[in-house]
Amino acid sequence: MEWLKSQITVETRGKGLYPFTDQVIEHIRKWGIQEGMCFLFIQHTSASLLISESYDRTARIDLEEFMERVAPESQSWHQHTLEGSDDSPSHMKAMLTDTDLTIPINNQKLSLGTWQGLYVFEHRKRGHNRQILIRCLKIK
Amino acid sequence: MEWLKSQITVETRGKGLYPFTDQVIEHIRKWGIQEGMCFLFIQHTSASLLISESYDRTARIDLEEFMERVAPESQSWHQHTLEGSDDSPSHMKAMLTDTDLTIPINNQKLSLGTWQGLYVFEHRKRGHNRQILIRCLKIK
Amino acid sequence: MEWLKSQITVETRGKGLYPFTDQVIEHIRKWGIQEGMCFLFIQHTSASLLISESYDRTARIDLEEFMERVAPESQSWHQHTLEGSDDSPSHMKAMLTDTDLTIPINNQKLSLGTWQGLYVFEHRKRGHNRQILIRCLKIK
Repeated sequence: MEWLKSQITVETRGKGLYPFTDQVIEHIRKWGIQEGMCFLFIQHTSASLLISESYDRTARIDLEEFMERVAPESQSWHQHTLEGSDDSPSHMKAMLTDTDLTIPINNQKLSLGTWQGLYVFEHRKRGHNRQILIRCLKIK
Repeated sequence: MEWLKSQITVETRGKGLYPFTDQVIEHIRKWGIQEGMCFLFIQHTSASLLISESYDRTARIDLEEFMERVAPESQSWHQHTLEGSDDSPSHMKAMLTDTDLTIPINNQKLSLGTWQGLYVFEHRKRGHNRQILIRCLKIK
Repeated sequence: MEWLKSQITVETRGKGLYPFTDQVIEHIRKWGIQEGMCFLFIQHTSASLLISESYDRTARIDLEEFMERVAPESQSWHQHTLEGSDDSPSHMKAMLTDTDLTIPINNQKLSLGTWQGLYVFEHRKRGHNRQILIRCLKIK
């Protein structure tokens, strides 16, 4: 067994889903992993990780709109407003999605289902450079 | 350390929670794992994984009803409707629950709490065969 | 590679977020882990785990209030009410957050981002002793 590690940066341009499946696949290829486990961890509380539908763009538009409706900005009961009206909702949206993902590697491939893709979900209005730690346990 | 892998299929009959704890326990028993880690990954975006209350059926009925209320079908703002009114809500529900689960194995047993059970959460109206990858790291 | 394991108890005093980052860091220090992976698992269905903003207390107050609004008590459609009006909502809130967390250890430190902290999210009105299993894979 071997342990491999690196970091991926995803540059966002405000709220929405940003695909980064290819960056993960490139690490697995470069490291020559045939069989193992891939661990992803995003080091933020106002952006998160998500595995979701990668085929039809409208599926992602609906997910983004859904999140705005579940945790809208500018509610009278929000107390955490010093950094803007999108700050507190960004933590709510991050809470409802993922900070870490754990995905098997099988036959030299990330074992995603046919329609699954990896996304950074940016919850702030402004763009950010989001840091994702990647760790792989290489069995062979 | 040893690496063990297999695949579990859970047949669903439309929306709802389907228990599969026993299928995971059977793998751990068969592989003779005393101590280690169990990794589960569902290869779908319209069904998900959940660890929840396994004792009282009414707890699960409430969870299913809750999800219908949080992400109802047939909203005017839904754009991803080509495959039916349950398609976009199915991705929303999957987003709010889990794609992967990581559970310790201790004393030859999956370390679930007293009331915890493993479920596939089917979010589509029609039944499906849902594929779950199981990976175990056997320490001893 | 080495496998280390223990259990952390977090005593809660009713609904809310309870920090336990320090207890995890103490285990990593005690075990002398420079590089590896930390796995956390909470053995409950009415309390959950969360990585969230650790700096400003108002961020956590908003998250707690948000959860009360997403899954309020005493709804007419709740069937699982035998153990009190907070029982069924506690499973809903646990469903929306995390049962397990997987966090890299890097340079002898838990690789949390600047503002990330670990919390037990208690969803019941009464206090409880919540059990969290900690497992670490020590690479070096």
